[in-house]
Amino acid sequence: MDGPLVNEAVLGRVKGWRPYVEAKLGFRNHWYPALFSRELEEGKPVEATLLGESILINRVHGVARAIRNRCLHRGVKFSRRLECYKPGTITCWYHAFTYDWKDGRLVDIITNPSSALIGKHKLQTYPVIEAQGLVFVFVGHEEPPALAADVPPGFLDADRTIHGKRRVVRSNWRLGVENGFDASHIFIHKGSPLCAGNDIALPLGFAPTQPGTGTRPSIGAPGPIGLYDLLGESAIPVFEGTIGGETVLEGHFGEKRVADNISIWLPGVLKVDPWPQEGMQQFEWYVPVDATTHIYLQTLGRVTASPAEAEAFRQEVDDKWVDLALDGFNDDDVWAREATEEFYADNDRGWVEERLFEADIAIVQWRKLASEHNRGIQRPENL
Amino acid sequence: MDGPLVNEAVLGRVKGWRPYVEAKLGFRNHWYPALFSRELEEGKPVEATLLGESILINRVHGVARAIRNRCLHRGVKFSRRLECYKPGTITCWYHAFTYDWKDGRLVDIITNPSSALIGKHKLQTYPVIEAQGLVFVFVGHEEPPALAADVPPGFLDADRTIHGKRRVVRSNWRLGVENGFDASHIFIHKGSPLCAGNDIALPLGFAPTQPGTGTRPSIGAPGPIGLYDLLGESAIPVFEGTIGGETVLEGHFGEKRVADNISIWLPGVLKVDPWPQEGMQQFEWYVPVDATTHIYLQTLGRVTASPAEAEAFRQEVDDKWVDLALDGFNDDDVWAREATEEFYADNDRGWVEERLFEADIAIVQWRKLASEHNRGIQRPENL
Amino acid sequence: MDGPLVNEAVLGRVKGWRPYVEAKLGFRNHWYPALFSRELEEGKPVEATLLGESILINRVHGVARAIRNRCLHRGVKFSRRLECYKPGTITCWYHAFTYDWKDGRLVDIITNPSSALIGKHKLQTYPVIEAQGLVFVFVGHEEPPALAADVPPGFLDADRTIHGKRRVVRSNWRLGVENGFDASHIFIHKGSPLCAGNDIALPLGFAPTQPGTGTRPSIGAPGPIGLYDLLGESAIPVFEGTIGGETVLEGHFGEKRVADNISIWLPGVLKVDPWPQEGMQQFEWYVPVDATTHIYLQTLGRVTASPAEAEAFRQEVDDKWVDLALDGFNDDDVWAREATEEFYADNDRGWVEERLFEADIAIVQWRKLASEHNRGIQRPENL
Repeated sequence: MDGPLVNEAVLGRVKGWRPYVEAKLGFRNHWYPALFSRELEEGKPVEATLLGESILINRVHGVARAIRNRCLHRGVKFSRRLECYKPGTITCWYHAFTYDWKDGRLVDIITNPSSALIGKHKLQTYPVIEAQGLVFVFVGHEEPPALAADVPPGFLDADRTIHGKRRVVRSNWRLGVENGFDASHIFIHKGSPLCAGNDIALPLGFAPTQPGTGTRPSIGAPGPIGLYDLLGESAIPVFEGTIGGETVLEGHFGEKRVADNISIWLPGVLKVDPWPQEGMQQFEWYVPVDATTHIYLQTLGRVTASPAEAEAFRQEVDDKWVDLALDGFNDDDVWAREATEEFYADNDRGWVEERLFEADIAIVQWRKLASEHNRGIQRPENL
Repeated sequence: MDGPLVNEAVLGRVKGWRPYVEAKLGFRNHWYPALFSRELEEGKPVEATLLGESILINRVHGVARAIRNRCLHRGVKFSRRLECYKPGTITCWYHAFTYDWKDGRLVDIITNPSSALIGKHKLQTYPVIEAQGLVFVFVGHEEPPALAADVPPGFLDADRTIHGKRRVVRSNWRLGVENGFDASHIFIHKGSPLCAGNDIALPLGFAPTQPGTGTRPSIGAPGPIGLYDLLGESAIPVFEGTIGGETVLEGHFGEKRVADNISIWLPGVLKVDPWPQEGMQQFEWYVPVDATTHIYLQTLGRVTASPAEAEAFRQEVDDKWVDLALDGFNDDDVWAREATEEFYADNDRGWVEERLFEADIAIVQWRKLASEHNRGIQRPENL
Repeated sequence: MDGPLVNEAVLGRVKGWRPYVEAKLGFRNHWYPALFSRELEEGKPVEATLLGESILINRVHGVARAIRNRCLHRGVKFSRRLECYKPGTITCWYHAFTYDWKDGRLVDIITNPSSALIGKHKLQTYPVIEAQGLVFVFVGHEEPPALAADVPPGFLDADRTIHGKRRVVRSNWRLGVENGFDASHIFIHKGSPLCAGNDIALPLGFAPTQPGTGTRPSIGAPGPIGLYDLLGESAIPVFEGTIGGETVLEGHFGEKRVADNISIWLPGVLKVDPWPQEGMQQFEWYVPVDATTHIYLQTLGRVTASPAEAEAFRQEVDDKWVDLALDGFNDDDVWAREATEEFYADNDRGWVEERLFEADIAIVQWRKLASEHNRGIQRPENL
């Protein structure tokens, strides 16, 4: 309902990944994690805006449910004043239109129990799946695929324990993806507490040696669809920073070798393996909220052999890795995305005025893959 | 001067009350109360924005006067720094253009007393009438009708004392009118301190029994023009709130019967009689300020027999009814209007995406009546 | 990149000075003072936005340099996190693109020292001249003229000492120029501490006696190009303020005669001589920052005979004249410009709805001169 989302002049000039540039609000018909299962209590709805749609998520008789957070009648948000008079239903605070959480059906109108509308209308509902301690919501109208089609390989492994945090970042979601999958961005981490604190090897950048390579796609059905970075094979890590031949800076020569395997997956989730050390992985999502904001949902994973080991791992993440990695390292990324937002948000000029360099081949290939394999673009008419 | 006020795509889809949807800034050529007489002191101009026009109201030799708050010369607001060097005039702080409050005539320019402009130009003035302790301003260019044409029946009765308060509400004025005249909205008042505090009967809603009725118009010349709600005849009050046949909530079974007679009048004023108890009435205005704000001017009235009785009534309103009714009850309404604003303000989508139900017949009839009988729509070119 | 800067409907109606109305962001290809030399330290870049362009200014090996504050790669601002690893260069905090301050050349990319881009690209640089304690930046792409073409006569005299301050004012730059060059605006200074504190004669306004005169242009090559106000010859100072023949106000009858000679120069700099007293001059710039903001750079000048005398004069400005004149008097001007902004910023309506009077002949002539003699209009495509 808001006029064109994206500058038409810019769209006309983009070659190779126009759908990606159009997807300012994200790709439709995909699964997105909205929050952690531990954040969702029985009968306590939580509001989450995904791809510009305000959604209310609740746990009803133990099952996670999601509905559009907007009464059909006068369009008000239920979340302004949550009212529930019977488990499994939600009643609008204004005229008492009452809906079923399961299918969105208008089951009653308390202020007018004889209304002909009752039973005839349905609020939009969203498929929800809980997995690995996360609540995934399918944003779209199509039949949803299995969750496995939209998460990185290994993420759903039964013996893997996942734990992490989420926060809101003030940049478009694509700047999150591109910062994460961009190997050269590690330059911003040169002073990170993780380097010394975990003794990892961290170069200043990567010099590609074979022009035109860079990634290996993974697009087989039933998915997921993504790209592996091939830095290890096609680039030399830069540990000596030089200007005019003179060494001015050095990378961090640590003992631990990490991040051998970096991959990006639709609809926008990064896997770094191992990270922040051997035996662990980082899976992180950049979930579109609106044009200028995304949810940065960061998780760490490890194979665990028992519930006790799983619990110990979660404790370790909370006690150690949040400070050292999820904050200590990734705060730099959050800062960088927010600092990049201005240029791309200014009438979308960034998409045509940027000047990419060799190391951006991975970003270019991600944009093309996303343009080709997404299941739909979020449009204003869906808002 | 601001491009189209209302989304053209929405206007094209509205059937039945397009002028009403166009009237985002209100209806022109009507009388609006801007403030209370007690707020207007001799020689102390007060700024009020009505229908998007910034107006300066003053008491000059005892008479209320209103002028456009914008110097003809460089367009600055007099109210930025009020300067008056001779009673009955106002001098612009910038180049000392000096105007007469009575007719807006440019009577002098202190910085250039020989200017040819003197006596040749006029600032826009607004007809003003004080009545029942309120200062009414006529916003428009046409010849104003009698004030009685724009206030509810009985309001001007000589033996009626009127007293109240005003505040600014962050919603379009129409959401004020529609909340007030909408009988089913009483659902939001179910916990109001007025129910118990004044022992009134307050149902949860109304179930219309005769489809298609709902209101009785009053459109005879010389006015006022409005609608009476016919709930008493055509609907059953709902005291038992049910979901799926199960009672989940009850209305308030008080002794006092109130609000038998509810009516709405152009240009946007509600009368509730009796209210908040027998012998009293509430008259309340929703005066457009700009596209997203209105002045909520609330008054209570009662027939009084003497000045002493009138004064006692005003004291009673201040001491008791402001807390219990004008705030205690109507704060819920203010909150509801502000919570509804988002949907209608979002590119005017509400007007085409709302889904009205049976009880909204009164609102539909108000929209049609207002579309047909208003004296003009406020347009950007008047701002 | 931001759609039309100026309301097209307004542009279509402006007669006589359309280029001036188009120049919302200022005139291109002119010299503008960005800051004082004393504010620019070696190796400590300062950000300044001029005509909508974010510029980074630095002192490199003693020489003032200016570059575009935006990395060619992903468009981020260097100023977000300044990094310099070798004197004379600046390194982008994100991917370590490294540029030379002198010519903007991309001299290295630390994260990828073998990049083919190195040596092939140039960041925009800006010509810079330091003179009279100010850092002047040439905003444009043309070959810059001598600085003398863009400053008032006498400003660059070798024996003149200049000292002052700068601040940001929340109005378009043209409202700064017009307030300064408008003789009648002195009405706002009637209560200024400078009147009594420095015993100057200050009328309330000026009554032009010869219609159609008002200014004398100075447009000879090589410039500068400007206008002298001819009030002394063509207008009578108004010391008696009257309304309807009755005296209501008086100007300030001081001993000192000041401001005999007032002139305005492209690209927007005022000279008042003498001011605030015999032997001194005020030179002040209104430098466009963006559509609604300008830098108000105020200086006072005096002929001095030795470095010691120059230093004593600077001290006198700091100790006495900032309080009494640059703040005490000009704070009123800042206030007036900000109070005028609303009308002109509202869809540029002011340019067609204003109603000028006789004393505005000087402003009209300035608008025409500026429209005819500017070296270019700042357009969105340059941002």
